[in-house]
Amino acid sequence: MQLITRPAHSIINQSFDSRLRLDTVPVNGDGFGVGWYQSNPDTTSTPCIFTSITPAWNNQNLSRLAEEIQSSLVFAHVRASTTGALSETNCHPWRFGRLMWMHNGHIANFNKIKRKLQQSLKDELFLFVQGNTDSEWAFALFLNQLEDPINGQFDHETLKIAMLKTIDQLNNWAEEAGIHEFSLLNFAVTDGHSVICTRYINSKTEEAASLYFSSGTRFTEYKPGHYRMTKADKREDIVLVASEPLTFEKADWLTIPTNTCLVITPKLNVLLFPIKDQFYNIHRVKKKCIFFNSCNE
Amino acid sequence: MQLITRPAHSIINQSFDSRLRLDTVPVNGDGFGVGWYQSNPDTTSTPCIFTSITPAWNNQNLSRLAEEIQSSLVFAHVRASTTGALSETNCHPWRFGRLMWMHNGHIANFNKIKRKLQQSLKDELFLFVQGNTDSEWAFALFLNQLEDPINGQFDHETLKIAMLKTIDQLNNWAEEAGIHEFSLLNFAVTDGHSVICTRYINSKTEEAASLYFSSGTRFTEYKPGHYRMTKADKREDIVLVASEPLTFEKADWLTIPTNTCLVITPKLNVLLFPIKDQFYNIHRVKKKCIFFNSCNE
Amino acid sequence: MQLITRPAHSIINQSFDSRLRLDTVPVNGDGFGVGWYQSNPDTTSTPCIFTSITPAWNNQNLSRLAEEIQSSLVFAHVRASTTGALSETNCHPWRFGRLMWMHNGHIANFNKIKRKLQQSLKDELFLFVQGNTDSEWAFALFLNQLEDPINGQFDHETLKIAMLKTIDQLNNWAEEAGIHEFSLLNFAVTDGHSVICTRYINSKTEEAASLYFSSGTRFTEYKPGHYRMTKADKREDIVLVASEPLTFEKADWLTIPTNTCLVITPKLNVLLFPIKDQFYNIHRVKKKCIFFNSCNE
Amino acid sequence: MQLITRPAHSIINQSFDSRLRLDTVPVNGDGFGVGWYQSNPDTTSTPCIFTSITPAWNNQNLSRLAEEIQSSLVFAHVRASTTGALSETNCHPWRFGRLMWMHNGHIANFNKIKRKLQQSLKDELFLFVQGNTDSEWAFALFLNQLEDPINGQFDHETLKIAMLKTIDQLNNWAEEAGIHEFSLLNFAVTDGHSVICTRYINSKTEEAASLYFSSGTRFTEYKPGHYRMTKADKREDIVLVASEPLTFEKADWLTIPTNTCLVITPKLNVLLFPIKDQFYNIHRVKKKCIFFNSCNE
Repeated sequence: MQLITRPAHSIINQSFDSRLRLDTVPVNGDGFGVGWYQSNPDTTSTPCIFTSITPAWNNQNLSRLAEEIQSSLVFAHVRASTTGALSETNCHPWRFGRLMWMHNGHIANFNKIKRKLQQSLKDELFLFVQGNTDSEWAFALFLNQLEDPINGQFDHETLKIAMLKTIDQLNNWAEEAGIHEFSLLNFAVTDGHSVICTRYINSKTEEAASLYFSSGTRFTEYKPGHYRMTKADKREDIVLVASEPLTFEKADWLTIPTNTCLVITPKLNVLLFPIKDQFYNIHRVKKKCIFFNSCNE
Repeated sequence: MQLITRPAHSIINQSFDSRLRLDTVPVNGDGFGVGWYQSNPDTTSTPCIFTSITPAWNNQNLSRLAEEIQSSLVFAHVRASTTGALSETNCHPWRFGRLMWMHNGHIANFNKIKRKLQQSLKDELFLFVQGNTDSEWAFALFLNQLEDPINGQFDHETLKIAMLKTIDQLNNWAEEAGIHEFSLLNFAVTDGHSVICTRYINSKTEEAASLYFSSGTRFTEYKPGHYRMTKADKREDIVLVASEPLTFEKADWLTIPTNTCLVITPKLNVLLFPIKDQFYNIHRVKKKCIFFNSCNE
Repeated sequence: MQLITRPAHSIINQSFDSRLRLDTVPVNGDGFGVGWYQSNPDTTSTPCIFTSITPAWNNQNLSRLAEEIQSSLVFAHVRASTTGALSETNCHPWRFGRLMWMHNGHIANFNKIKRKLQQSLKDELFLFVQGNTDSEWAFALFLNQLEDPINGQFDHETLKIAMLKTIDQLNNWAEEAGIHEFSLLNFAVTDGHSVICTRYINSKTEEAASLYFSSGTRFTEYKPGHYRMTKADKREDIVLVASEPLTFEKADWLTIPTNTCLVITPKLNVLLFPIKDQFYNIHRVKKKCIFFNSCNE
Repeated sequence: MQLITRPAHSIINQSFDSRLRLDTVPVNGDGFGVGWYQSNPDTTSTPCIFTSITPAWNNQNLSRLAEEIQSSLVFAHVRASTTGALSETNCHPWRFGRLMWMHNGHIANFNKIKRKLQQSLKDELFLFVQGNTDSEWAFALFLNQLEDPINGQFDHETLKIAMLKTIDQLNNWAEEAGIHEFSLLNFAVTDGHSVICTRYINSKTEEAASLYFSSGTRFTEYKPGHYRMTKADKREDIVLVASEPLTFEKADWLTIPTNTCLVITPKLNVLLFPIKDQFYNIHRVKKKCIFFNSCNE
């Protein structure tokens, strides 16, 4: 699960292509997807999504599109299937109006809460889901927290609150259903302007699936297939969030602590909030990052 | 939607392949599926299903499998999508235990009854559905009428009753939801021994999608790509049901009247029952076929 | 086989999507491809190509890309396979450097001239071909007529001459091999600036596969799915070439005569040249179009 | 690259499925193929081949077919692409008449010998190739060594000689072209009765890609996903050859030495012959296996 905001030029697209290749070889061959907004999205832009059930590293359409597309905001996802058959409808990311969503992880024992989740949804969201994955249903649940998901204007605070409500609702249903396995809830959502990501597990002691971020002025490829983030000046034009540090210099990457909500504002400020719910554990939080506030308080 | 029972030899498989090609060119290119039982199925045999999102007439795997497979009961389906995205999980037929199902037609305004249908299902059937089509949900509804769909032994009477209940239930929900469009409910189900098909529309005056059958002792290819059913003796070893008479001699085919339930017994008797519900219309029934009893009385 | 030059805005992309749907349903379900240049291509732009082995009318990636892409030159092709298995490498169009190529028709008895064609090619072109169709090999043959197909700058005259040499070479090999069936050689090639199309058959009396063109200032959708070309002023901003008049007003379309070479210059002048070779037949030429010169004289 | 001869029952098919899953996860997601003969092939049986461009471990068609198919001889191949695009035509195994072929490895600098190879072929073999891989062209070269590849009856000696000629020819062309990289030539071919495999590299000192075999009376699954070969009596009913020992007990597997030709006769005798050509190195041969004769002498 990776996202990129404000890449300057198509070299960035090349690089996300390169990184996909390297990232995906070890474990994931169950389809992939990329979603992006046009270079200068206005407030009504919908993202474009390209998904495939064949592996990313051998997809000629993706290679050719990656040469061409210039975008200020890219989501890329490689799928190791946990639930749902291999089909294009089950490939992340998904879009609804201007919103785009992806998920790295899985909802434990999803079958035990699937009916409740579906019943909680407004009709248009119940009918919106085309595939059969916990991740797409979680997107519908997120949308259900928004007042007008198709036409509304969203600020990052609204999106953050909806995200936290989504996690809270999933936790409540898991408790009601007596589910003891942990859910890995690394979600990412964007409206093309703000981005909200979570690194989350419903446990006080376990670590969530990893999540990293990096920011700077521009990428440079210092040797073939190896990239480094450079900070030419005070401006931070690029923000990357990824589940692995990939092929970039490790020093360029910061670990996002478990049970954290990361917000990238339209002005590219990066804000980190600990998620202070029943699974909050002050001792688990590693001090690598400066927190701005805390969520759920 | 085609099915074949008791084909003698693999030439039959060749022919279903040939017929598929001819059948599908005019209208259908949205994926296909075939399902079959082994030549001598015992009471625990499950069908084997092969589906694909690329057109049947250009599928090399299908061509090669058709050369090889010998089966006494084949379902073949070519999909012109009405609901559900193009994916293998949305291709007919589907199987559940020993049962296999397909549908030609569509449930009108399915979105308006989808929630009710889902809520009526036992958990295992609610969770069984992997795709997103009215047809697969109708299969779940059919299974829900059976006491033990996974382990039970079914006679053709049991299967027929479940089929009629399924149609009746769909009619009731359509009425509750105020749906006035007609549903085309040509269903086929089998356990590998009996086959139940319907030609049905929830209208007293309209015709349902077409359905034909033919029976005889063996197929012969009297000129390339053209087949004729021959009746060498009193035994009827082959029964074919198809939505179109295909490339066979038209005289070999009988039209199944609208709102009829066709039953093929394990001994290959073919029984036709008018479906006597609120949409029954004695004047519509064409007298081409002898009816044995009537359903729903 | 369709191409569009100078579409003003993304509505054009919408429309080519719509037309694809309508065009392709009747006969073609064997994969498709689209290729396009960026809105403002410079002299080094390569086209982007998207191909798929599933039908165009049900391809969600294509629908989403068509919303997004703005291009001044689009090639679209729907494949009814004549040779070569169904695979992405066998889908038109193909690209080589900045050049893009597609073909509607087939080379008669291609197997009898395949070896000679391959042996005539420079190594880089022999090795360039990834699929197994007469059409892609014909592209390699065309490229072989150019001095520097990868780096060269091409004017429309150079491209036209290479096209005519390609046809002439295919005719010579067909004669040597004693092939009497006719080849249908409707080719289209572009470097992103000029476009060369042919409507050709190696026969003095038969008609080639159809080819039409239309030009005007802008498209308007006067009722859903129906488009009309309007000519608001003297400028002709859009040129369309298609194998069928599609859903547009028939009156907007001109038939391109059999055995004609059509050239669209970078300034959008449309030139028609009869191909005056051994299959030229003055009586066959219909007088619908003004010819500028004749080819091969 | 795996092959199985004489599996007793469908549990074997289950297991090859299981092993595929385990085998393929680490490295290979570029499509796969299986080929098999009917349980009791006569002398005219052609193999059935199923290939797919999506990964084996998530292919529902494969899972369902594996439940059903009973075969005395199975080839299974998982592809990590070296040359040729991802398409079904580029997936191993291939068949020609009754013969079936697969390849693990690659021909070094194949582009430098491709023209010579093609020019050496009889027309029917030149035209037979549908894809674009070194492996399929090597199959055509193998077929070209046989007098009548489509109708002939083959004994294992004939097949072995053709295999060695194929390798010898590839070596000669590599030398003529001045290619110094090594080719990995682990080939397998069968006519449904005999099987010929090679473990080969054109180097005196390097090791070829690994190859193992195992034989016994039957498989047993002693814990989930773990299989052991048992030898209930003197009869050896099953022979397995695989590029990795997979999930079976390591002790059940013998390493086939580099530059060896393995022959399985119709009576299931397993014969190992060192390939005594210019790359033969007596010191490299490990003494794990008893050699019967040597090849090429």
